[in-house]
Amino acid sequence: MRELLEKIVAEGEVVTDGVLKVDRFLNHQVDPHLMKRIGEEFAAKFHCERPTKVLTLESSGISPALMAAYELGVPLVVARKRRPLTMTREVYRAEVYSFTKKETNEIIVSRPLLDSSDRVLIIDDFLANGQAALGMVEVVHQAGADVVGIGIVIEKAFQDGGRLLRSRGFRVVSLARIGSLTDGVIRFHEGVMNG
Amino acid sequence: MRELLEKIVAEGEVVTDGVLKVDRFLNHQVDPHLMKRIGEEFAAKFHCERPTKVLTLESSGISPALMAAYELGVPLVVARKRRPLTMTREVYRAEVYSFTKKETNEIIVSRPLLDSSDRVLIIDDFLANGQAALGMVEVVHQAGADVVGIGIVIEKAFQDGGRLLRSRGFRVVSLARIGSLTDGVIRFHEGVMNG
Repeated sequence: MRELLEKIVAEGEVVTDGVLKVDRFLNHQVDPHLMKRIGEEFAAKFHCERPTKVLTLESSGISPALMAAYELGVPLVVARKRRPLTMTREVYRAEVYSFTKKETNEIIVSRPLLDSSDRVLIIDDFLANGQAALGMVEVVHQAGADVVGIGIVIEKAFQDGGRLLRSRGFRVVSLARIGSLTDGVIRFHEGVMNG
Repeated sequence: MRELLEKIVAEGEVVTDGVLKVDRFLNHQVDPHLMKRIGEEFAAKFHCERPTKVLTLESSGISPALMAAYELGVPLVVARKRRPLTMTREVYRAEVYSFTKKETNEIIVSRPLLDSSDRVLIIDDFLANGQAALGMVEVVHQAGADVVGIGIVIEKAFQDGGRLLRSRGFRVVSLARIGSLTDGVIRFHEGVMNG
């Protein structure tokens, strides 16, 4: 998605070889018109799968996911993050390990919000190691529902998540794929856009 | 906003005399079309104030605030919550006391995202004691910027926040005002809608 790639080049900031900061338009500050375009793009890619729900993880997945849900005309479900607590029976839950923070957190969805008739489109802002997406997949499967696709705004294609999810048969659509961030330069998977 | 009041009556759940659960359409599950309508309503109420930014607090303020920012054509800034850490100079920060959780948390906004030329519209999903809104006001004032208004989806008018904010001269627009939740019945400030 060219508009997104241009925004990443113009306003993204390479923090380390592994970390791209997009605080200016995707998470801390959000560009609502870009989110709308991203929502339209996800809707165009996935509407044939007839999703009944969009699922994302708080909080930075919410903006692109809300716009995708709006375009698709279906509810958005926001999985909640929290540290492991006492087991209760009213929620679906999965553990998600963060390689960045080196800690395990739980993601939780209230049972009444997903059931076996649902066809779920998972949306997230970033795909790195794929752990968050796999946690959401697990929650969907606990509900007996189907994952009809995974939409990612920015995939770090130099990390394992994309390969892992695709090898398990999921259709993953990433609107931008970063090939590397070496030497402070953002190289997209399809080629170099700046240097 | 009638559509919102009807949704609260149809899908809201009174948990205690003080707690209204709106997990079905406002936070855990989100109705994107209702959010769009809410965004339009906030834009209609506040566009004359010429806001340059919308500010909200993660994570349940994001959905209505994103739609308001979209309609107003301005960026959304999402203040982050976290527990106090080492002081840094690159952020605005305020402490917010939660009466529900009986704990103080910090809210943080990166300095480059707000400056003294900004006219900020604060949006949040709930207004109860007003502590979150006051924390956001403090962050805006640290930036030397102006608060041009406060837009709330659901105000618990039986708690002190609305009175507190209005007494300090802020223009507060609440799309639904709950007068009481006594005996499991949702009474709106303007009268009874169910019973």
